[in-house]
Parts: sequence; C-alpha cells; structure tokens
Amino acid sequence: MDAASNGFTPHRVDPGRPSDSDRTLYQWINGRTAKGVAVVSCRLRGRDYAATVTDFLSVSYDPPTMLLSLYSLSRIAEAVVESGVWALSLLAAENTAVADALSEPGAPLIALLDNVPHERRRDSSPAIVSGALAWFELETTAVHEVATHTLVVGEVRWMGRGGAGGPLVRYESEYRRLES
Amino acid sequence: MDAASNGFTPHRVDPGRPSDSDRTLYQWINGRTAKGVAVVSCRLRGRDYAATVTDFLSVSYDPPTMLLSLYSLSRIAEAVVESGVWALSLLAAENTAVADALSEPGAPLIALLDNVPHERRRDSSPAIVSGALAWFELETTAVHEVATHTLVVGEVRWMGRGGAGGPLVRYESEYRRLES
Repeated sequence: MDAASNGFTPHRVDPGRPSDSDRTLYQWINGRTAKGVAVVSCRLRGRDYAATVTDFLSVSYDPPTMLLSLYSLSRIAEAVVESGVWALSLLAAENTAVADALSEPGAPLIALLDNVPHERRRDSSPAIVSGALAWFELETTAVHEVATHTLVVGEVRWMGRGGAGGPLVRYESEYRRLES
Repeated sequence: MDAASNGFTPHRVDPGRPSDSDRTLYQWINGRTAKGVAVVSCRLRGRDYAATVTDFLSVSYDPPTMLLSLYSLSRIAEAVVESGVWALSLLAAENTAVADALSEPGAPLIALLDNVPHERRRDSSPAIVSGALAWFELETTAVHEVATHTLVVGEVRWMGRGGAGGPLVRYESEYRRLES
C-alpha cells in the first residue's frame, strides 16, 4: 500500500455489484481486525468435525449466547447445523499447530483429530481442544443465512476454564500473540 | 481462579434459567477471547452517536457484509437501527483514549465527538475516527433480535485504509497490543 493511500480516501462499493478490486480491498481491510482464534467442533453419526474459526462473538450474557459465522457450503457448516450441538475451544498462543491443522477445508475427515490432543464431556459430545484457554458447548437456537454465510446462534449448555496462557490472535493473515 | 479449576471441569448452565454464577463464569470466560476494538458511529437528525464495540465480524466478501451486536436497550442500538447507515472505525493501538472516551454508555450526546479527532465523507455521513487502521461505512440489510441484543447486518458501501500501526485489542477487560 503506497503512502498516498494512507489518508482518508473513501473507496465506493457498488450495491449488488462488488468488483474484484472491491473484494480484494475488503479482504485486506478485514485482515486489519485482530481476532481471537477458536476451534469449532461437533460430532455427527460417530464422526468428528472440527475447523479453525475467527468469526464468532458473544451475543448475550442472559442467557449465555454466542454466534458463529461459517461459509455455508463448507462441510463444517453442514455438520454444525445438522448436529445442533457444537463446541468452541478458545485457543491459547501455544495452540498454533492445532489452528494450522484444522484450517484446511479439504482435510480428510477420517482421523481428523488423531493428532490433536482433545477431551470430551461424553462419548457423543463435541471434542474440546486440550490446552485451550476456555471452552463452550452450545445448542443451536437460531440459524440465519446471510449472503454466502450461515450465522449459527447457540445457547451455552456447558462451559469450562482451561490453561493459563495468553490467547492466539489472527491479524493480517498471521498468527500473533499479545504483548505481555 | 484456583489451580484445581485449571482442568477439564465442565460447568452446567440450565437452559432458560442461568444463575448469577453461570453469568459470572460466562463473562470471565468470554473475557478470554481476544477481540479487535472498533468505534461504531452514525448520524441521526444532525447529531452524532458513537460507541466503542468489540462484538462485530465479517460475514461475507461477496457482497462485503458485516455484522455488529449491540445491547438492544442502548442508545447506540436505537440510533444505528433508526439511521440505517453506520460506520465502523477499526482502532489502532494508539487510539486507547478514544476507546475509553466512547465506552461510557451514559456519556452526554451533546459534543460527544468534540474531543475525538474524526473525519467524514459528507456532512450527513457517520464520523470516522482519525488514525483508525481502516473503516467501513455500511447500510443495514437485516436486523435480528437475539436474547438481550440486536444483531445488525450491513453491506459495505464505502471503505478506506487508515494509519499504519498495529491494532488495539481487548482481552480480560484490558486494552492490549500485539507482540511485534
């Protein structure tokens, strides 16, 4: 990005007709949002599904409610919606390898979690990444389709605290950690 | 938090009847999610509304779409929904004073932005915080009520790049910056 562009220069996006350059600039700008990193997981017909995500947020404390945005055509979106029960593991700075391992949309599902240390509440429960800072197990209460993505809203049914380290953060397409 | 609790100890939340301790633990766990910090702003009947927020995310690249969660009973939620046009300024690590100034829900609206350096595209446009890393101006396309909060979905109509610094991050109720 050249110096001249570092000022207040509005870039227009045409409603309904974003161009390739609109999308490229949007992705670049969006990369300048620091985001906590989590793993979403669910269990469906005896198989584990899991993926690294950054687009989630807390909606409400009463009742404890979270929202997760997933690309609608992804396997993890289909699995989470069909399962109705899912977990979020908030990754610690030390969990970079897990974040990388579960970031491949095309990774084979067979043995997906063989190399990811995890625990679970019951056999049928979603996997929780070992060493995560904290985790939630949620039950879906609403699903909204927005553009290319599925917004899954869920109420927390179980939760727990994990390790004591700092959080893993995603910024400008890289994993980062907080200054201590 | 004592050492004994640093393991995998699921805490149950009763559906529909979260207790005070459920909410306290949830807020503590939620604080362990690193979040980028932004200012949402809008202009309504000649007056500026602005508030510091952390609960927003990118929903889609095509068309560029974002989602913001606001406490339904807040003035900023009412103003954003009524205005239909709003902006997000992604704050830089150097913007801590702005984040603090716009974090007071009861702050008087008169002269709200007098001490916050800002720019705007047109007189009727929402304010953009000067020195922000980047910004979006959005038009609301959907509003969903979920528990105590309002989810506002908007398509990006204008956007821009700002300063070159690192992002401001919220973690465990404190402002932090990334390790360089």
